[in-house]
Amino acid sequence: MKRYKKQDYPLEHIRRHLEPGPIVLVSSAWRGESNIMTMGWHMMMEFTPALVGCIISNQNHSFALIRKSGACVINVPTADMAEVVVGIGNCTGGKIDKFEKFALTKAPARMVEAPLIAECYASFECRLYDASRIDKYNFFVWEAVKAHVAPAVKRPKTIHYKGEGQFRVAGETIDLARKFRPEYL
Amino acid sequence: MKRYKKQDYPLEHIRRHLEPGPIVLVSSAWRGESNIMTMGWHMMMEFTPALVGCIISNQNHSFALIRKSGACVINVPTADMAEVVVGIGNCTGGKIDKFEKFALTKAPARMVEAPLIAECYASFECRLYDASRIDKYNFFVWEAVKAHVAPAVKRPKTIHYKGEGQFRVAGETIDLARKFRPEYL
Repeated sequence: MKRYKKQDYPLEHIRRHLEPGPIVLVSSAWRGESNIMTMGWHMMMEFTPALVGCIISNQNHSFALIRKSGACVINVPTADMAEVVVGIGNCTGGKIDKFEKFALTKAPARMVEAPLIAECYASFECRLYDASRIDKYNFFVWEAVKAHVAPAVKRPKTIHYKGEGQFRVAGETIDLARKFRPEYL
Repeated sequence: MKRYKKQDYPLEHIRRHLEPGPIVLVSSAWRGESNIMTMGWHMMMEFTPALVGCIISNQNHSFALIRKSGACVINVPTADMAEVVVGIGNCTGGKIDKFEKFALTKAPARMVEAPLIAECYASFECRLYDASRIDKYNFFVWEAVKAHVAPAVKRPKTIHYKGEGQFRVAGETIDLARKFRPEYL
């Protein structure tokens, strides 16, 4: 798998990478232990601050690392990583080191302890913004506090999970900017 | 635009249509008035009950109809409707009837007053499940109470908004079911 050189990216534009609905890899760390989980249930909630909501099941090994650290990194994988994404989602970090098992590379984050995944073209460092619905729904609200995106990637082949072991790959682009009111772009 | 013949669909499987992250059209009705809005910020929250979270800005004309009725229908459009989707998102229902303006067909829902959109291949009738974070985030939690999907549509060309007036169309399918633990499928 390719490793990407990412650059700082404006937080108010992270919707360009998350709103299309890709499956993501969430990396976490707590007291020296790190882990990765696959996540499909997430959404943008606000531009500024850059809020992202998501469901992280308390059945995941990552849940405790994420809740205790109050932080995570949301990494966006592409189609070349599809088998790794599925592998990560089908084993538990309680017994193995997923970075080692799946030959993924940790890159240091700037604002949180959790590492970036170098093989993902985009990574968003997040701090817990609202924990009030974790107990009821496993629902976390994150504030993205630092964004990293590889500028060379213009049309990422993100993968979108539809259940039953199947993904759709992001395909052609439709540009309808001319149909928008300028203030809505 | 084609109109679809939809059939009853299992509520526990609606994730197959929403988790990939398509832009959706939300229809609403209250005391004889109906409206449609375009929505990109939504996510699955639970299989059973079938919960869907979303952000509906209180700047939208639909906000009041949806909040007062405590109901809506989430309809999934496809690429042939892209210009209509953008048109709906760039005008307000305060002054016009969007069904009429965009030549969309109302089909009766079974559990809510809001109509289904016949030109969308999938429609999910929703009742408000949790209003507790509307004031803080414009965040609604819906329970899908009736699902309608056109069985003829196997690989819908859904469209996924990435900002700047651009959409990605759902492309090829990757099937990795063989790599899943059976209980995770």
